[in-house]
Amino acid sequence: MADKVRLGIIGLGAQGGLYARLISDGKVPNMVIGAIVDHDPAKRELAASTYPGVPVYEDFESVLDSGDVDAVVTTVPHYLHPEMGIAALSRGIHPLVEKPAGVYTKQVKELNEYAATKPELTFGIMFNQRNNPLYQRIKEIVEAGEIGKIRRTNWIITTWWRPQGYYEQSDWRATWGGEGGGVLVNQVPHQLDLLQWIAGVPKSVFAKVAYGFRRNIATEDEVTVVVDYGEGATGVLVTATHDLIGTDRFEILGDSGKIVVEGSKTAYVTRLSKTEQEISDSIGPDDVKKMFMGEMNLDSYQETETIEYDRPWGQQHAGVLENFAANILDGTPLLAPGSEGINGVRLANAIHLSSWLGEEVPLDLDEDRYLDELNKRIRDEGKFAERS
Amino acid sequence: MADKVRLGIIGLGAQGGLYARLISDGKVPNMVIGAIVDHDPAKRELAASTYPGVPVYEDFESVLDSGDVDAVVTTVPHYLHPEMGIAALSRGIHPLVEKPAGVYTKQVKELNEYAATKPELTFGIMFNQRNNPLYQRIKEIVEAGEIGKIRRTNWIITTWWRPQGYYEQSDWRATWGGEGGGVLVNQVPHQLDLLQWIAGVPKSVFAKVAYGFRRNIATEDEVTVVVDYGEGATGVLVTATHDLIGTDRFEILGDSGKIVVEGSKTAYVTRLSKTEQEISDSIGPDDVKKMFMGEMNLDSYQETETIEYDRPWGQQHAGVLENFAANILDGTPLLAPGSEGINGVRLANAIHLSSWLGEEVPLDLDEDRYLDELNKRIRDEGKFAERS
Repeated sequence: MADKVRLGIIGLGAQGGLYARLISDGKVPNMVIGAIVDHDPAKRELAASTYPGVPVYEDFESVLDSGDVDAVVTTVPHYLHPEMGIAALSRGIHPLVEKPAGVYTKQVKELNEYAATKPELTFGIMFNQRNNPLYQRIKEIVEAGEIGKIRRTNWIITTWWRPQGYYEQSDWRATWGGEGGGVLVNQVPHQLDLLQWIAGVPKSVFAKVAYGFRRNIATEDEVTVVVDYGEGATGVLVTATHDLIGTDRFEILGDSGKIVVEGSKTAYVTRLSKTEQEISDSIGPDDVKKMFMGEMNLDSYQETETIEYDRPWGQQHAGVLENFAANILDGTPLLAPGSEGINGVRLANAIHLSSWLGEEVPLDLDEDRYLDELNKRIRDEGKFAERS
Repeated sequence: MADKVRLGIIGLGAQGGLYARLISDGKVPNMVIGAIVDHDPAKRELAASTYPGVPVYEDFESVLDSGDVDAVVTTVPHYLHPEMGIAALSRGIHPLVEKPAGVYTKQVKELNEYAATKPELTFGIMFNQRNNPLYQRIKEIVEAGEIGKIRRTNWIITTWWRPQGYYEQSDWRATWGGEGGGVLVNQVPHQLDLLQWIAGVPKSVFAKVAYGFRRNIATEDEVTVVVDYGEGATGVLVTATHDLIGTDRFEILGDSGKIVVEGSKTAYVTRLSKTEQEISDSIGPDDVKKMFMGEMNLDSYQETETIEYDRPWGQQHAGVLENFAANILDGTPLLAPGSEGINGVRLANAIHLSSWLGEEVPLDLDEDRYLDELNKRIRDEGKFAERS
């Protein structure tokens, strides 16, 4: 293979346009635009005039057999990611699926199972926030056991503000049949991924979800979730697309430390010199009395480090593209393996299902039941075909 | 009546001792210690030597008829607050009940109903944090509609750290039969009150509660609650007695503003010039595009004020004592009317019950069912008598 991966960009919308620009601006040194695909003639014209010399296709299937691309990125509505991923793999093309990996776990499982039969191909997912050096550092700290075993997480992520006009940009946006959900499938998949990447996969969730609550949409615009990781570890996640002024505050409490990330930008990492349990056990009756006299000082047990990185806009996406291409070219480990996309989809499905049933739902959920409930909503909406 | 209220202190434990000291130090100008009551001879000896001249009683009933006191404060185990409140009222003595007002709503209702038949007597509750000028100011801001209608609250209040030694100080601590609960009845009633004082009484709760999880106790040491205020307003409350380092962060989101209180010490109040809904409606398709290019600035809609007060230790309790006495002496409005104590108890009961049943529970809960479940736990514990 040549020293650069030729990427087919499937869909020249906001994301596809961003990736095309990053590559043509040289921000992804090991990648070139191999082709651009869009079913909209206006978008194809735009592609031809903006990127002269780049082959332009109307149809996804034909680019796969064109010989113009080594890989594709699927910047199309979420429902299509699994089937396009499978189609690419079946033609020997490396797929980078846009997040989320799909809308429901059943379809994502099919993609993962098929991808497992093609180990020679690179299967990635665009979790650009995994390329935020702050979250990478936090994952390292947690994995190294520097704050001990995780006890609790709490993420308020309500900076996903979207005005009504945003939802009116396209027909499929925030519909059941076209998009498959609202904030859970569009905005917050980043955090659903980071949360599980850093803190692990939960066992169950209980969710309160509001549908078309403060926006004129069919799907969810506000979500409150209680997460159970098992062994007593719990978490809370709150998200919404209608909060002014939104909050982005992620707290991770461990047995021997705590991390607070403010605005996905600054992290305060407190490390304890002993575990909380050891400190508790070391405090005798006299110390308890002192504590209530305000005379006990826990400061000697702790030290707090502040971590901050610059985070240029676009670098995250360019980094994922570059890492994906590097895996194809020389086997550099993938930052975001495609098979991990299912975690976010499963968590989103469980949150929906919990809210629909009004009860706590295991992450190991009944996939057919989820699909039935989803299809009910697609039927009621009456705009798109049901899914299978 | 004289110009000072003679207060009977019932129980010379940590709280009773604090109030005695505050009064004898002149921190409560309109109050004197009328008598001290304790069934423990050592405590009575301590009372006699520390406060010479103050009558000391072994028995609560006899102080009520002694003529030595105009009012009493019930710094005794929580279960006793309602019955002592009723006994005082029945003898024409003004009761100031320690928080919580009781352990289960059924007993607190009896107290409230009885108190309603004695409108000439002052019935107060020791919600000292209502006397924190910061929370008073926040209540004013919310009541004046300065942040609009409340949409969501989120309180992480895990600064109630208690080592195992704390629980081993007395036999009734954190037992079902002696104390009636853990963090919900002992530490967090302050926040259960402030939350409802500021944001209103919820309609239902779903709770994950851990019992004797990281402390060797029978009752709860960790609580995660999703609150439903009705009309789409929701909230989250997380509390625990085993978090190092704990967090105290209270966020209140309104239609036209947001308040974040850090450490019960500093409040950041953001006011919007329009409601969030109006801002959303005013943003056309071009503005949406600008937003995604990072070219839209919402700063012009908002202004943030930082509020901070000094908060000397002890002043809060002294203030409640002084306000209670002033109500008796000249009718000054009560900061914490005793009848409002039921709100915190009801919320705590609903949280327990939700965790026991594994389902969402209305605040208007089945009181007999709660008492049955509580008695089950008292029976299993085998140390104290069941309640009726």
